[in-house]
Amino acid sequence: MYRLTPEGLSHMALGATLLGAGGGGDPYISLLMVQEAMAKYGEVNIVSASELDPNDLVLTVAVIGAPTVMTEKVPSGTEFVDAVKSLAKYLGKKPAAVMAIEVGGLNTLFPLAVAAEMGIPVVDGDSMRRAFPQIEMTVFTLAGISASPMSLADEKGNVVVFETTTNQVAEKLARACVMQLGMANGLSSYSMTAKQVADHGINGSMTYCAELGRHLQQIQDGKNGAYDEFLKFAHAKIYFSGKIIDLDRRTTGGFARGTLVIEDFKDPSRKMRVDFQNEFLIAYDGDEAVVTTPDLICVLDHENAQPITVEGLNFGQRVDVVGMPCAPEWHQEGMLELVGPKAFGYEVEYRPVEGSHA
Amino acid sequence: MYRLTPEGLSHMALGATLLGAGGGGDPYISLLMVQEAMAKYGEVNIVSASELDPNDLVLTVAVIGAPTVMTEKVPSGTEFVDAVKSLAKYLGKKPAAVMAIEVGGLNTLFPLAVAAEMGIPVVDGDSMRRAFPQIEMTVFTLAGISASPMSLADEKGNVVVFETTTNQVAEKLARACVMQLGMANGLSSYSMTAKQVADHGINGSMTYCAELGRHLQQIQDGKNGAYDEFLKFAHAKIYFSGKIIDLDRRTTGGFARGTLVIEDFKDPSRKMRVDFQNEFLIAYDGDEAVVTTPDLICVLDHENAQPITVEGLNFGQRVDVVGMPCAPEWHQEGMLELVGPKAFGYEVEYRPVEGSHA
Repeated sequence: MYRLTPEGLSHMALGATLLGAGGGGDPYISLLMVQEAMAKYGEVNIVSASELDPNDLVLTVAVIGAPTVMTEKVPSGTEFVDAVKSLAKYLGKKPAAVMAIEVGGLNTLFPLAVAAEMGIPVVDGDSMRRAFPQIEMTVFTLAGISASPMSLADEKGNVVVFETTTNQVAEKLARACVMQLGMANGLSSYSMTAKQVADHGINGSMTYCAELGRHLQQIQDGKNGAYDEFLKFAHAKIYFSGKIIDLDRRTTGGFARGTLVIEDFKDPSRKMRVDFQNEFLIAYDGDEAVVTTPDLICVLDHENAQPITVEGLNFGQRVDVVGMPCAPEWHQEGMLELVGPKAFGYEVEYRPVEGSHA
Repeated sequence: MYRLTPEGLSHMALGATLLGAGGGGDPYISLLMVQEAMAKYGEVNIVSASELDPNDLVLTVAVIGAPTVMTEKVPSGTEFVDAVKSLAKYLGKKPAAVMAIEVGGLNTLFPLAVAAEMGIPVVDGDSMRRAFPQIEMTVFTLAGISASPMSLADEKGNVVVFETTTNQVAEKLARACVMQLGMANGLSSYSMTAKQVADHGINGSMTYCAELGRHLQQIQDGKNGAYDEFLKFAHAKIYFSGKIIDLDRRTTGGFARGTLVIEDFKDPSRKMRVDFQNEFLIAYDGDEAVVTTPDLICVLDHENAQPITVEGLNFGQRVDVVGMPCAPEWHQEGMLELVGPKAFGYEVEYRPVEGSHA
């Protein structure tokens, strides 16, 4: 267990932008909320699941909705604590800690604000160590852990509690309600014991995220060799460096889908295409898929290594495309059916990146 | 309190078709379910709210979805008991009785099946004494009683519990979930004490419905003067008799909307138009709106007085259009805003029918 420092929080926000892999929303919104909550309620401890009593209740908390809406309708904050409290009430038990469902994007930080207000720690772990667009796309689903009972709350006091037969149905129902409740709501799900989290979660991911952010900060601060250190730490590789020459973006079914084309700085005949659905999912060097989901595709500003989200993409931007292996916990039975290329409708085989744990 | 006889049940189903006012679904489906439940679990008692302990918990139970789907996907039955039990579990209290939310259409009878299985009585009352398409269109809403917490269940074991700030939001959320859960689910809502039901419900409506059915049965059995007796009992009047010459029907947003035109038997230049949205809502004699919601417009087969639902309408049918006053309990502040013509988008003033309690 350790206390999160303001510097650690800032690194975590930067790392979360990277782990968003283009999606997951801009962590800046949640960063402001956490800073406000910490100023009001005090600092927050990060705790390993294994440090808790094995029977302790852990609840995840996240925002669910459209990232594009969230930047316009900033969450008020009450919906996150409301979601957690209403699920706790439904279960008849108080949580000993809260946890991020995804360490990647703005959902990385919301649990910190909830933890500050509720006076409980945040578990150093999650179920993705990147962003994914749907509730069921977690290592918990692979472990057979139910997302429900789960609870959805808006900022006005509306609450919905779900008990579903599958995590896929949970996703569909929650999404249907979110569309009626302003497109940005608090969600508490995957109620677990600390032992379940320790056994089946991606442990250490909050600390990993802050470390990634610290490395990126060092690049931005101009420290010599910092980019190489970052790549080494993340087992990452630059797959392409060039200029965005085409960008096709459309919002369908609540998702930001599209394609990005980058032209190589030195050889204009060489091009990389990246397909995205909220997150970057497949990167093609020419015709060859070189990085594939669930491995991470991150688009970084070529000058300062700032991760760029799908919303932040612009024609003419100079970028690096970095590929990173997904968390080793993903590599188990059922991974490809749940989060591989075909799960998103791409007729592409998964090809583990270098440094992958596959 | 009295025991419902098989004959009483059959009358109730017939009366419920009439009180459906064209909508509410065909009670025949629910009649089969009730007969099966009674054969399996025993008969059911009908009880006045005032006969219960004032603090007893009463829960309503209904099907929510599209009537057209229900005739194809017959409810399995488990979703109704599941909805009631999950709401009871959420409230931490067992219901002493169940109740219909609407006495009109197939929702009149489902509570009887649930009551048989749960071994509790059905309250002789409801909140509409006709069918209306939305959860918030009840006299309970006028009394400020919340539809939530409410619980939705499907036949597969999925359950959703809602706590909402308004009954309008409850309606929107439930509808959104129903569209994900097969379009025909069990709904338990408006949890109340027996005293609240006695004070604010439409009491006696189950018995009234069976009485209406008994009168219709007598017409169908060819009893002399039975039609007049029926009209007298219901304070009803035949506004038009003629042949259906035009029928415009479309399903939009889960509702069956449309218009019906009837030509007078004797004077073909005289026409009645009836606008419907699931239920018949406005009847025009020429340009004049003569029967308006919430008063009831019922279309009866001209030969045998069988009530015809919107789905049962056909070109060339010979029909009587009967107007009936709505339950007197509707006549209180807020009625027109909630269920008057303008609430359904018609720029028409409410005009109470003869015999109305307005």
